[in-house]
Amino acid sequence: MKQYEHLFRLFHSYLEQYRIGLHNRKPAELYKPEDYILSLGGKRLRPLLALIACDLFDRAPDKALDSALCVELFHNFSLIHDDILDAAPLRRNQATVHTKWNTNIAILSGDVMLVKAFHVLNKYSQEESRELSFIFSNTAIEVCEGQQLDMNFESIDEVTVDQYLHMITLKTAVLLGCSLKMGAINAGAQELDQQNIYEFGKHLGIAFQLLDDVLDAYAGTPEFGKQIGGDIIANKKTYLLLKATELASDRQKKELDHLLKLGKESSQEKIAGIKVLFDELHVKELCIERANKHTSIAINHLKNLPVSEFKKENLRQFALELLKRNV
Amino acid sequence: MKQYEHLFRLFHSYLEQYRIGLHNRKPAELYKPEDYILSLGGKRLRPLLALIACDLFDRAPDKALDSALCVELFHNFSLIHDDILDAAPLRRNQATVHTKWNTNIAILSGDVMLVKAFHVLNKYSQEESRELSFIFSNTAIEVCEGQQLDMNFESIDEVTVDQYLHMITLKTAVLLGCSLKMGAINAGAQELDQQNIYEFGKHLGIAFQLLDDVLDAYAGTPEFGKQIGGDIIANKKTYLLLKATELASDRQKKELDHLLKLGKESSQEKIAGIKVLFDELHVKELCIERANKHTSIAINHLKNLPVSEFKKENLRQFALELLKRNV
Repeated sequence: MKQYEHLFRLFHSYLEQYRIGLHNRKPAELYKPEDYILSLGGKRLRPLLALIACDLFDRAPDKALDSALCVELFHNFSLIHDDILDAAPLRRNQATVHTKWNTNIAILSGDVMLVKAFHVLNKYSQEESRELSFIFSNTAIEVCEGQQLDMNFESIDEVTVDQYLHMITLKTAVLLGCSLKMGAINAGAQELDQQNIYEFGKHLGIAFQLLDDVLDAYAGTPEFGKQIGGDIIANKKTYLLLKATELASDRQKKELDHLLKLGKESSQEKIAGIKVLFDELHVKELCIERANKHTSIAINHLKNLPVSEFKKENLRQFALELLKRNV
Repeated sequence: MKQYEHLFRLFHSYLEQYRIGLHNRKPAELYKPEDYILSLGGKRLRPLLALIACDLFDRAPDKALDSALCVELFHNFSLIHDDILDAAPLRRNQATVHTKWNTNIAILSGDVMLVKAFHVLNKYSQEESRELSFIFSNTAIEVCEGQQLDMNFESIDEVTVDQYLHMITLKTAVLLGCSLKMGAINAGAQELDQQNIYEFGKHLGIAFQLLDDVLDAYAGTPEFGKQIGGDIIANKKTYLLLKATELASDRQKKELDHLLKLGKESSQEKIAGIKVLFDELHVKELCIERANKHTSIAINHLKNLPVSEFKKENLRQFALELLKRNV
């Protein structure tokens, strides 16, 4: 991501300033968790996309700093609340907010971050702030819907691959599209161009999540405190598992059912067994193929943008690098 | 509240329409709790204030319907999340959302209602929607701060009366002021008038909460599923208790400390004993006096509004009726 290092640093400084502002706010019990979750780092992908889009359409990227802050605050709000929902003890190898403080503080500090995500948009002109608020609130509603669908899937026996793709689109992908669109709005881009950059981000997000499923089963991401096969152990309905269920013969279905019922004490056997089935059914390849399809759609949406080929190529490279870290 | 019956009905129909819209939204697990909490009724005080203010400044009140919906959605979001924080099983004698469904669904359906409170403001013109979003987001931040302070007070030994007044201002009063101000913005009122109507609502809210403290100790509100002395049993730091602590002699302090330590099995003894101390120290009268002070301040803020005396008198009567139901 060398090509956007300066944008990363630009946002980083802005976020640091914002965090310093938090230190004086009272009550501290409300704002310390906000400062804490923002201190845990991460790729800052969403704010970066807002700045990239603003720069892409030839406006100084600092114009989009409050849009960037908005989506980062929202993303971190959703991490705090999702970690409660998942009863997750760790986030980036550090204690989650509800573990470090308690659930009540985690609920409330998440709430205030969600409000502030909207609040920072008031810094823009009347015209921009409503446009931004419109796409952002629509997206935020979709993210909540995606999160609820994800929870629902845990207790539904039959989830189709299409339903899964719809869920990850809402839960993960639309916020990437929204981040880019907000930057494009800040740059004063035409509506058609805003829509194309949104679609680019959305399909990139779908590809990203699909490759994340592959990564979880085949590589693990120890830097995020995840273990290889975490999804498999948890019977998580990923693209891999759903596709395998769809394609399995009767014999394989029986085998899969047996493996899914294995408890924690047989984790290694479970992972190995399920991956044998994945291999037999070539679901890893199918998942990568599907991801590639969405990557192509994403990149196609860049084609007609009225911006320099150099900038387009930079963004294309960035997207490919982002996806490559995943396989 | 006969004088505003038509406004109540106006909002009621609008809310019914909104709720019908929810029935088709998916996933149902996310929107059923929203529909449920909105079905539990209530005074609809905040939306009513938005419509009243719009009407006061001579605009058709339906102009303020989305502001009214905004503050009602926000209020109900805060009820869902507060009920989780308080582990409350009942709300208006019905199961709370986290009891009827579960905590995860209650967190997430509250979140989506908070987002939608902002979302509905996008229906206004660019100018209005930013002005509304500005006062509303500021207020929403304050409400979260007030809620956190309220939680903090549970575990702090020394809370002053001033700190308590600050907390109830944030937690309860500013949203009443905000509701009125939003209606005034919809009516195109001057900034000074917006500010006066805001202060009217804020001080009305403080008076309302203080009289609620009196009510809890001296009358109870069985229609809301509360018992007489509920605050006393829970050692809740109300104005009454804090003022009593401030004024108590050494003998009375010792007696109070003893009573506060009594367990559930001695509830009746506790209530009776603490109320003897309250009587000795005249804290009921002091609390009513303080409430009256805020009522006067509130009504003073109506004086210079450039609206008909008839409308002012209606609003004054409404405020007094609202407070009267409390003592």
